[in-house]
Amino acid sequence: MSLLMDNQFGELPVDKSVDTKFFLESVAYLPPFFDCLGSKVFVPIKSDISGNITKIRSVYDKDPAKYATLQQIMESEKEAYGTEWPKVGATLALMWLKRGLRFIQILLQSLADGEKDENNPNLIRVNITKAYDQALKKYHGWLVQKIFKAALFAAPYKSDFIKALSKGQEVREEDCMASVRQFLINYTATVDAIYEMYTTLNAELDYSV
Amino acid sequence: MSLLMDNQFGELPVDKSVDTKFFLESVAYLPPFFDCLGSKVFVPIKSDISGNITKIRSVYDKDPAKYATLQQIMESEKEAYGTEWPKVGATLALMWLKRGLRFIQILLQSLADGEKDENNPNLIRVNITKAYDQALKKYHGWLVQKIFKAALFAAPYKSDFIKALSKGQEVREEDCMASVRQFLINYTATVDAIYEMYTTLNAELDYSV
Ligand SMILES: CCCCCCCCCCCCC/C=C/[C@@H](O)[C@H](CO[C@@H]1O[C@H](CO)[C@H](O)[C@H](OS(=O)(=O)O)[C@H]1O)NC(=O)CCCCCCCCCCC
Ligand SMILES: CCCCCCCCCCCCC/C=C/[C@@H](O)[C@H](CO[C@@H]1O[C@H](CO)[C@H](O)[C@H](OS(=O)(=O)O)[C@H]1O)NC(=O)CCCCCCCCCCC
Repeated sequence: MSLLMDNQFGELPVDKSVDTKFFLESVAYLPPFFDCLGSKVFVPIKSDISGNITKIRSVYDKDPAKYATLQQIMESEKEAYGTEWPKVGATLALMWLKRGLRFIQILLQSLADGEKDENNPNLIRVNITKAYDQALKKYHGWLVQKIFKAALFAAPYKSDFIKALSKGQEVREEDCMASVRQFLINYTATVDAIYEMYTTLNAELDYSV
Repeated sequence: MSLLMDNQFGELPVDKSVDTKFFLESVAYLPPFFDCLGSKVFVPIKSDISGNITKIRSVYDKDPAKYATLQQIMESEKEAYGTEWPKVGATLALMWLKRGLRFIQILLQSLADGEKDENNPNLIRVNITKAYDQALKKYHGWLVQKIFKAALFAAPYKSDFIKALSKGQEVREEDCMASVRQFLINYTATVDAIYEMYTTLNAELDYSV
């Protein structure tokens, strides 16, 4: 389970603030996650997520002290942008990024929980669909939903996905899942904290693309 | 018809060599063409084409004299890459780029020729489908073809497409089409010359994605 385990997210402090620098370092390893899905069809998703990360990094780089936590970025932008906010800047980029992060989280959690299609135990479509329904579907219009349904056919077999997550090594499913569970602890806490922040700051939007 | 007319392709010399610098300058204006289709769904296509252009430009910039024409780039790469060629470098980027250029050409030609769905004269699906079938379909596996069929529903009305091509101005369809015809003269000659070059150098591949 090297891909994720090599780059664990850090534990959150008690106030649940998310350190921007550490966050950016950890999420930088996630776009290659979409390569694990094994098809070129997922390139646009990888680009979209990479674009979000680049956007947040470019804001951070302007003043690392001022933007030391994700909370600080959002509060500064709220101040700076007025009524344009929150559909702007790093606030918008993180709004979408967190949905992709939630997608990954639910997908991995569902696999770790052993959820499967009993008739097709080596397919992960049920797990992907669950993650999509909960994290993204409501933000997609009917057309993108339709494209999702088509793209689902490009999803890899569970065994190939596990091998890819393990950087090409053959590992036992149980060993891989133990690593996934370990990875999910701090990762889930971080994603939850970001969602909470959007609720607290009233920054969540529900327009669809 | 400003978008295209402002950036006409130059006339080809008798030997049909394509000047790299002029070519790169002219194609740089084409990715925004996909914005004229009016939906975010086309962003991945725009990125793919922009990526091709960037790849060719980066080769050219290494030695503008050596790579003065597209022919010279391909011949140098053939020499340099051995058996990896032609699935490599600017040769690969131009192989795919020319298909996107052909798509645009056939779509515009079909509109200029007045081809339409008599029952839905303000839809351009028939024109897009014709362009896709001739320029791209055979290089796409069933999955991407399926995604294409879904994406087709995001195609704009003809009137909106014409307005977008005219940079938001309301122009008469006939005036716009006259400009399209003018644009297509040198553009089609250039695209044809690139296709011929791939045939002559035996550089065309027919794998699908
Ligand atoms: C030849 C025929 C070709 C036809 C072409 C059809 C192409 C179809 C393209 C499908 C869409 C690709 C996914 C991208 C969708 C994106 O549109 C959305 C919104 O994207 C956000 O939009 C904002 C403005 O509203 C800002 O620009 C954000 O950018 S900003 O940084 O500038 O602020 C940006 O991320 N992101 C999303 O929905 C996020 C997607 C995460 C996906 C997670 C995994 C799903 C996995 C599925 C597995 C089966
Ligand atoms: C949340 C759910 C999300 C699900 C996500 C689904 C996303 C679906 C994505 C669909 C594909 C987008 C189009 C891109 C396709 C590309 O895969 C192909 C080959 O692309 C080439 O591949 C090469 C290697 O083989 C090199 O990397 C080239 O790169 S290199 O420069 O490095 O050498 C690269 O261009 N290009 C193409 O097929 C070209 C496409 C031109 C399109 C022309 C117009 C079509 C218009 C249609 C209008 C209706």
